Amino acid sequence: MPATHRLSRRHLLVGGGALGAVGMVGAVAGLPGGGETHGDHDASPQLVEFHGPHQAGIATPVQQHLHFAAFDVTANDLAGLVALLQDWTAAARAMTANRPVERVESARRLAPPSDTGETLDLHAARLTITVGLGRSLFDDRFGLADRSPAPLADLPAYPGDVLDPARCGGDLVIQTCSDDPQVAVHAVRNLSRIATGLAAVRWAQLGFGKASATDTAGPTPRNLFGFKDGTANIRGDDADALADHVWAQPSDGSAWMAGGSYLVARRIRMTVESWDRTSLEDQERAVGRTKDVGAPLGAAREHDRVRPHGLPTDSHVRLAHPSLHGGVRMLRRGFSFVDGADELGHLDAGLFFLAYQRDPRRAFVPVQAELSRHDAMSRYVRHTGSSVWAVPPGVGPDGWWGETLLG
Amino acid sequence: MPATHRLSRRHLLVGGGALGAVGMVGAVAGLPGGGETHGDHDASPQLVEFHGPHQAGIATPVQQHLHFAAFDVTANDLAGLVALLQDWTAAARAMTANRPVERVESARRLAPPSDTGETLDLHAARLTITVGLGRSLFDDRFGLADRSPAPLADLPAYPGDVLDPARCGGDLVIQTCSDDPQVAVHAVRNLSRIATGLAAVRWAQLGFGKASATDTAGPTPRNLFGFKDGTANIRGDDADALADHVWAQPSDGSAWMAGGSYLVARRIRMTVESWDRTSLEDQERAVGRTKDVGAPLGAAREHDRVRPHGLPTDSHVRLAHPSLHGGVRMLRRGFSFVDGADELGHLDAGLFFLAYQRDPRRAFVPVQAELSRHDAMSRYVRHTGSSVWAVPPGVGPDGWWGETLLG
Repeated sequence: MPATHRLSRRHLLVGGGALGAVGMVGAVAGLPGGGETHGDHDASPQLVEFHGPHQAGIATPVQQHLHFAAFDVTANDLAGLVALLQDWTAAARAMTANRPVERVESARRLAPPSDTGETLDLHAARLTITVGLGRSLFDDRFGLADRSPAPLADLPAYPGDVLDPARCGGDLVIQTCSDDPQVAVHAVRNLSRIATGLAAVRWAQLGFGKASATDTAGPTPRNLFGFKDGTANIRGDDADALADHVWAQPSDGSAWMAGGSYLVARRIRMTVESWDRTSLEDQERAVGRTKDVGAPLGAAREHDRVRPHGLPTDSHVRLAHPSLHGGVRMLRRGFSFVDGADELGHLDAGLFFLAYQRDPRRAFVPVQAELSRHDAMSRYVRHTGSSVWAVPPGVGPDGWWGETLLG
Repeated sequence: MPATHRLSRRHLLVGGGALGAVGMVGAVAGLPGGGETHGDHDASPQLVEFHGPHQAGIATPVQQHLHFAAFDVTANDLAGLVALLQDWTAAARAMTANRPVERVESARRLAPPSDTGETLDLHAARLTITVGLGRSLFDDRFGLADRSPAPLADLPAYPGDVLDPARCGGDLVIQTCSDDPQVAVHAVRNLSRIATGLAAVRWAQLGFGKASATDTAGPTPRNLFGFKDGTANIRGDDADALADHVWAQPSDGSAWMAGGSYLVARRIRMTVESWDRTSLEDQERAVGRTKDVGAPLGAAREHDRVRPHGLPTDSHVRLAHPSLHGGVRMLRRGFSFVDGADELGHLDAGLFFLAYQRDPRRAFVPVQAELSRHDAMSRYVRHTGSSVWAVPPGVGPDGWWGETLLG
């Protein structure tokens, strides 16, 4: 006689059946560690608000772990796509609030659990879940062929691209970030499970970031070249810069994207073995900053003003400087990755570059054109994956991802 | 005119040259964040002592991140092998004490930095580095053919093995664990760099563990099946159990291994998509414990006594119970892994099983024989990588890894 069974991080209401209800309920009261028993809503600073005009996970201070998964939609019609996005929204709303994924109806003991369970004792740890739409979604399958926003254009080919088709493209993307790797993995796993029959994972990438700084005032993290990376990045609390460079504006066309952003994701393999055999002076000239404190060459401190024309002409910082690109900036949110070793025994490692921007045609596209041709650092990197995503605006408590396009 | 240049997490003594010594030295004083300036030795509880009768990283409370790398030795002779192990020991001694890797002589600005630099602002975060020797090292290359300890035997083939040769074997292994993934990766990277010409990475595996518990009294972490895993594990502070089941004893033969241990490493792919479609009742019967609190079926609390004969005959906990294997136990130190998605869009995920034991022939080998044939959980796992390592004893302040065998 199976009874209802609700798995929750806080309330473990265990129905009985053959295994003995009394003993198990007794056990719940003694749940060690993670078993919090206070109210249904947790206002901990370790939760990131899911609702708002913009999706969380963009201007949010960067978490320590990333699980990024691109999907191919297999649903036959618009109704299936809408159902998927609505189910995903509900699950993301729950998980980011530290609640497990639940069914609408009560789960039954003989049915598979509605949540896979590996985060039952864990905190959401600033989990954010962010969704994006790929160019391929705007074909004739869902009647969206004339709704594709102009900034969602395919990227041109660049020198240094060694793109693996198995790491490119996709109809939908989920970016999950948390300070706990198991929480990020859990979110992708449960969303892909919910997608069964409607969408399937096309490719995925895990990454890690700085270990301790959790706010925009923290020290700048170092990339796998050993250099500070992100000194001049847009801060998540700089509303003016976000409006100018990150959030799509109503005047940009495609009104359904207002409040959203565009994400360029590039898997940048770094040939660290070659880099590590390069002298410190050559490393610093390639970057345009010192390795230790991260100061622009010729200056003293990390945040001293960059004078691009005083830097080596092929230095990364000079070539990427906004003054050479009409003042354009991107909000970078990249993560380091190490996917084991390759067949030569070299680290399959690098930067999973994530950059949010108002229009890639005026930001990533021209900047990368310059870098890929002239950047001294480009001798040590290969771009092995590429994708561009329209990241729709955020949702309210009753909203769902994509409603401004599909609702 | 390049000057000496020492990269250190604490002392950034920057020589001048073309870039301006005065400005840079000024910057050092203002180093943000991680720039600690107290003494050369850091007695922080976040450091794990490198020296001792046993290597650190075995009985040490489990850290959050793993980078595990197997190497093929390419050195031509015993002198090369000894030099490698001595250089590795020196580098590991430095990194685990929160110091960067340094040359014996002063590094010069025009030479590659002696440390790759990506942890300059980071703390070692309980870094441990543990070395092991593989069976293949005991061939005729280094005159060790008659020194191989008997417990370092190849494992038999088991049902459920789908071993990828690219994930098996090796002459040497480095297990690095830290609460910071970048610190673990940095250690493997610098050790493989030091090994250039003497050894090359054969394969590598990254993993992650529980996010917050850092001591043996913490809650039991959950694996990717969503179940608590390790309830009955040997505690790192249980000296009697360690002596009985983990540390090689002088009476075991191969006196050079006394104080060491044997490590069985298995990459266990979990087919989580199938598992997630299984009912809660079937999941619990396969494991032999409840999913929520982790109590043995029929009992109330996680640490209630397991009565194996009351559990389903094909349950994992019953089949692995010490009472069925002459009382044998292993110290398990596994990490979850997610290596992206496979070609079907399934998570390439599972458990990187690490088990330290006094003699695998009396521990892992018979237990796995039983599990691989009868365990209900084995329907949801495939073993895709396998290796066995002789992990020599620890070293003193002037010692080096392997000295009891090669010194």
